Amino acid sequence: MSERYVHGYDPRENARLQDQAGTLVDLLHSDTSYPAGSVVLEAGCGVGAQTVTLAQRSPGTRFMSVDISPDSIAVAKRRTNAAGLTNVEFRQADLFALPFGPESFDHVFACFILEHLSRPVEALAILKNLLKPGGTVTVIEGDHGSAYFHPSSDAAQRAIQCLVELQQAAGGNALIGRQLYPLMVAAGLDAVHVSPRMVYVDSSKPALVDGFTKKTFTAMIEGVRKSAIKAGIIEPQAFDAGIQDLYRTAGTDGVFCYTFFKAVGLKK
Amino acid sequence: MSERYVHGYDPRENARLQDQAGTLVDLLHSDTSYPAGSVVLEAGCGVGAQTVTLAQRSPGTRFMSVDISPDSIAVAKRRTNAAGLTNVEFRQADLFALPFGPESFDHVFACFILEHLSRPVEALAILKNLLKPGGTVTVIEGDHGSAYFHPSSDAAQRAIQCLVELQQAAGGNALIGRQLYPLMVAAGLDAVHVSPRMVYVDSSKPALVDGFTKKTFTAMIEGVRKSAIKAGIIEPQAFDAGIQDLYRTAGTDGVFCYTFFKAVGLKK
Repeated sequence: MSERYVHGYDPRENARLQDQAGTLVDLLHSDTSYPAGSVVLEAGCGVGAQTVTLAQRSPGTRFMSVDISPDSIAVAKRRTNAAGLTNVEFRQADLFALPFGPESFDHVFACFILEHLSRPVEALAILKNLLKPGGTVTVIEGDHGSAYFHPSSDAAQRAIQCLVELQQAAGGNALIGRQLYPLMVAAGLDAVHVSPRMVYVDSSKPALVDGFTKKTFTAMIEGVRKSAIKAGIIEPQAFDAGIQDLYRTAGTDGVFCYTFFKAVGLKK
Repeated sequence: MSERYVHGYDPRENARLQDQAGTLVDLLHSDTSYPAGSVVLEAGCGVGAQTVTLAQRSPGTRFMSVDISPDSIAVAKRRTNAAGLTNVEFRQADLFALPFGPESFDHVFACFILEHLSRPVEALAILKNLLKPGGTVTVIEGDHGSAYFHPSSDAAQRAIQCLVELQQAAGGNALIGRQLYPLMVAAGLDAVHVSPRMVYVDSSKPALVDGFTKKTFTAMIEGVRKSAIKAGIIEPQAFDAGIQDLYRTAGTDGVFCYTFFKAVGLKK
């Protein structure tokens, strides 16, 4: 993948990614399952937040889960072992130099990975090349420009913008969710279908208030505080005011909206 | 309703509202039907864009559709007559001075009306008072802050912001969709449930590209050109650049996202 990551490495961040996966499993993954006997490449498995769900939902499928980070793979391996899964194999590899021949896989799955890449179309074309004809690529990405809330807050939007800018500076794209359709088409995939997965949170949904508004989204933005201040994007007080306003949306009369995008494309 | 309206009166605008209603009927209304024998108040029927759908889906229900504008009611009446509907009665009335006693209705339906009111909670409380115990209020609203697209464009966002500011100056709230939950709760409604209805448009959906991105949303923004320029909110060139960028999102590699919110609350 040859890219710098904005999030994903430290233990607190790993805990956040686990929380996020727990809360969002149904929304994002309930319609992903693969036929028994198929072989699926999970490109960019990270700490395995999605791997356990994927492998549990398709017990007859063999998963090859790759990531560029050996540390992340070690965590992912512990998680699949703890879940008693025997249908996942891990391999450390760069997405742009994968050790697999053309048409090695029946399907490819890539969740929260394109956002980190400066050449997402090239990455998709590589993944397509690894597919047998008739295989699918499934991509899931967020879009930080899809976040809006009540009470509205310019300070909160500025704090979110810090993550967008840091990710851009690192070669990624925090607004990639909305772009999945043109990206998949540009990579030569056919029959591309995108379905948005909107997370709507009000105080009648306390599990989402806690699990998504606070512990997923706001925690993710909070996580770039040091980097954003160091990069000179924002003053500490302005950032903290934004975070405070994000927590404010978790109040009794608060509302928080965010949308993930799931795209499936076919290799003819 | 005692409020000035930002849109809804001229013939071109009426055509737009009809197009919008056609494209969005399933998304917004497919889960609204009332039991035979019930009496439903449609508060703010406008030109009847929703009235025909409502009345067709609940043929055994009697609808009392009110609007402050006699002109709008005349259009709405022609439409329900043309559809051969006999279960709709129209009455010209101000929402804040309705000629009905407490507990006159089994249910209340209000679509794209609260956005125009400076006192939405008061309006909801009035509507609640007209309900029999066990009755429901259904509210549908858009949220112009939910619009995002690819290619992203600050110019397009500034053009959208013109409508937001004009609606605010007229006492309304173009960002009301996200606020339905706290507003309904503040009005004393129980068991409030909000479901977002996201419109996702890419070029694999040509009917939505034409019917929604161009003829509903962009046409609506375009419709405030004269008022926005007259109010000094924006320069003509800047506005036109924004409109051009909105049309650009209807291109082959463009994507457009917008979310409506539907809320149902109960009178205990």
